[in-house]
Amino acid sequence: MSNSTNITWQKSLITREERWKIFGRTGATVWFTGLSAAGKSTVAGALEYVLVNRRIPSYLLDGDNIRHGLNSNLGFTHDDRTENIRRIGEVARLFADSGAIALTAFISPYRSDRAIARQAHEAAGLAFIEVFVDTPIEVCEQRDPKGLYKKARAGQIKGFTGIDDPYEPPADPALVLQTDKYDVAQCVEQCLDVLAARGALVLNSRYRFWKMFG
Amino acid sequence: MSNSTNITWQKSLITREERWKIFGRTGATVWFTGLSAAGKSTVAGALEYVLVNRRIPSYLLDGDNIRHGLNSNLGFTHDDRTENIRRIGEVARLFADSGAIALTAFISPYRSDRAIARQAHEAAGLAFIEVFVDTPIEVCEQRDPKGLYKKARAGQIKGFTGIDDPYEPPADPALVLQTDKYDVAQCVEQCLDVLAARGALVLNSRYRFWKMFG
Repeated sequence: MSNSTNITWQKSLITREERWKIFGRTGATVWFTGLSAAGKSTVAGALEYVLVNRRIPSYLLDGDNIRHGLNSNLGFTHDDRTENIRRIGEVARLFADSGAIALTAFISPYRSDRAIARQAHEAAGLAFIEVFVDTPIEVCEQRDPKGLYKKARAGQIKGFTGIDDPYEPPADPALVLQTDKYDVAQCVEQCLDVLAARGALVLNSRYRFWKMFG
Repeated sequence: MSNSTNITWQKSLITREERWKIFGRTGATVWFTGLSAAGKSTVAGALEYVLVNRRIPSYLLDGDNIRHGLNSNLGFTHDDRTENIRRIGEVARLFADSGAIALTAFISPYRSDRAIARQAHEAAGLAFIEVFVDTPIEVCEQRDPKGLYKKARAGQIKGFTGIDDPYEPPADPALVLQTDKYDVAQCVEQCLDVLAARGALVLNSRYRFWKMFG
């Protein structure tokens, strides 16, 4: 290997444009935000299922694979929460750059934290699709699958979003999901429509996604 | 959406096994380690090029996309260097879990740091393929594309691997690349052979990868 070859090859050989041309679509991040038990992971997990079954590389970042791994050294102070969301935004950006559809499912209650993630994407020319899972708190509290609202109401959990810590809804989300009015399959279809409009996938109208759930 | 549906769908709907069956291969991480200017990024970038051109999702993590993003809040203290490699290992693990072939190109001079990355993969049942880019320091110093060895020899850079900071070679790497004896295409083929042996791709013997460089 000559020195000149080394220098020529030092930088990434494949450009993002070449990569996306080969895969036939762009990468993107779909950022789900909303209250605890709003249905973020549910819809995001179902969307991941549909995408992967269509052989579209897609990956869900959620508490399960982030809190015990990349962010295992973060606690729940204000600074750590901000750093938690910042790192998730950066990882999502890498997945989107790779051509995958990154899905993130975190409460991410603060506008300023989500703005950092958005800026990281936009500065890199990558789509950041903010999906507001707009489930009324009464519905979330009724679902309460982990009993967290009950504990927060009883004062056993402090700083719980929607109870004694604010949730700041997106000012201009790409999509608002109403999980109390539409079922999971319908919510997934709404996400797919937005992804298709952004060039992140090519929808085949002859194939109805929701049938995968039927 | 009923409460029971919510609970059923709370966890990831798609298992890793299903995902890998759909993609027809497993995810994996190829971890390149070696001295500065050993050729890590060169070979890894060429490998990425070949994989993506075969429509195999693959992504190179290197200084360019990590130091300015995810790890922009880390310096060069011992603790920060360890945290740098830890985060890279965790991100690579997420990519491998997603079904992609993660490629990392960092000096990663310490065995203990690489062991953390390996353990994160093995605990998750993911292949961690350590590739030692075993270029003699004399060759690296002769290449010196960024003039770093020159500066380190002059004492202008402190703690430079191979000069005044140790490089600990892997005890049992999956592959040793000799970039002073083989060209980039040959090194890439050696990597592909190892990936194929691990089930991360299916080599088509009728198609010679190196021809893409010809």
